[in-house]
Amino acid sequence: MEDVKLLGFWTSLYSHRVIWTLKLKGINYEYIEEDKVNKSDLLLRSNPIYKKVPVLIHGRKVIVESPVILEYIEETWPDTPLLPKDTYDKAVARFWIKFADDVVKIVIATFFQAFKDEQEKEDAIQKALETLKVLEDQGLGDKKFFGGNEISMVDISYGVLGIWLEGLEEIVGIKLVEANKLPRLHAWRHRFKQIPVIKDNLPDYEKLKTHLQWRREGTISFKY
Amino acid sequence: MEDVKLLGFWTSLYSHRVIWTLKLKGINYEYIEEDKVNKSDLLLRSNPIYKKVPVLIHGRKVIVESPVILEYIEETWPDTPLLPKDTYDKAVARFWIKFADDVVKIVIATFFQAFKDEQEKEDAIQKALETLKVLEDQGLGDKKFFGGNEISMVDISYGVLGIWLEGLEEIVGIKLVEANKLPRLHAWRHRFKQIPVIKDNLPDYEKLKTHLQWRREGTISFKY
Repeated sequence: MEDVKLLGFWTSLYSHRVIWTLKLKGINYEYIEEDKVNKSDLLLRSNPIYKKVPVLIHGRKVIVESPVILEYIEETWPDTPLLPKDTYDKAVARFWIKFADDVVKIVIATFFQAFKDEQEKEDAIQKALETLKVLEDQGLGDKKFFGGNEISMVDISYGVLGIWLEGLEEIVGIKLVEANKLPRLHAWRHRFKQIPVIKDNLPDYEKLKTHLQWRREGTISFKY
Repeated sequence: MEDVKLLGFWTSLYSHRVIWTLKLKGINYEYIEEDKVNKSDLLLRSNPIYKKVPVLIHGRKVIVESPVILEYIEETWPDTPLLPKDTYDKAVARFWIKFADDVVKIVIATFFQAFKDEQEKEDAIQKALETLKVLEDQGLGDKKFFGGNEISMVDISYGVLGIWLEGLEEIVGIKLVEANKLPRLHAWRHRFKQIPVIKDNLPDYEKLKTHLQWRREGTISFKY
């Protein structure tokens, strides 16, 4: 077994996707925390195009971009599968994994912007709720997890709806994923965070909230 | 073998990704041209979330989003492979397929905007050139095609650099993919368009140019 290293950052939801995947599969790896202000030579050499975490280094192979890393891990270490075997089910899973980019853009971005007025705020919340409703109705449905009874790569891709969104909701004073608005997604979020590997590998909530608050105010301005 | 149907639109580069893939693999399918102004019930039912082409219908299975469709086709009909077998090579291919989204955003978007002044135009061209240079140096290199000697899913994903970008270059009067600026990408574009399946399945150049011109002027405003 070759060495596995992960370059990550403690608040990065994309880094956490990789951490959860590696842990769920029981792969031993060395975690290297990046300094976002003074990026390491290793990061700059490993990901010269985007200069971003996460970066997975497996022996001499370097893999970047979290959806690409997750597929690589799944194919390299097929035990504890996180994607369905069936070709069509896999396509459906990949569709929802891709939809997570929209959710980040529409829902998370909403909480990072300063609103011109109440109307703009209302519109943004409405749009975020509609997007989450699509995810709840058509993606999750009545299933326990997105892929059925077990956690899969789709759930991992929606980890942002865990404490990241919760922190932002608290900072801004708007609750989106609530029992009375999105009951199934609300229940899913609780279930997701109860999985030991997830629970044991989340950023500290209060520290994350401070960090998100700083980012929102522009005190720190780097991207995930 | 179950029925294969493809809902597409004649100017859509994403539809063409699927057309080329199906043709390269020799899969028989029924092509259904969509009316972008009056979207068909079949489209609205098949892709209720995005309401966009391309949509692949395989028997009763519906697959949307071109990267997801391409992976589905590759797994369902593995003959004439368009992705490498090796796990790491596949990750590298997927990275460049993903990078094509950036190229569309940065390069194609540049040609669709009206520039405030010469400086803004120059900056946009510079950024587009830099992005294409990354693709040429780090993606293509000295290879004939992105994956080596044969066409692959990566080449297919850069089909936009074929006649779509050529048409836009002509409309705007700026040449980016030129022998003196991006010689290897320039040669690749020529090679790509010479492949019979590509050559025989491209929109009519003059009609496409008129369409792109109309879109650029806002005469028609739908998205691909």
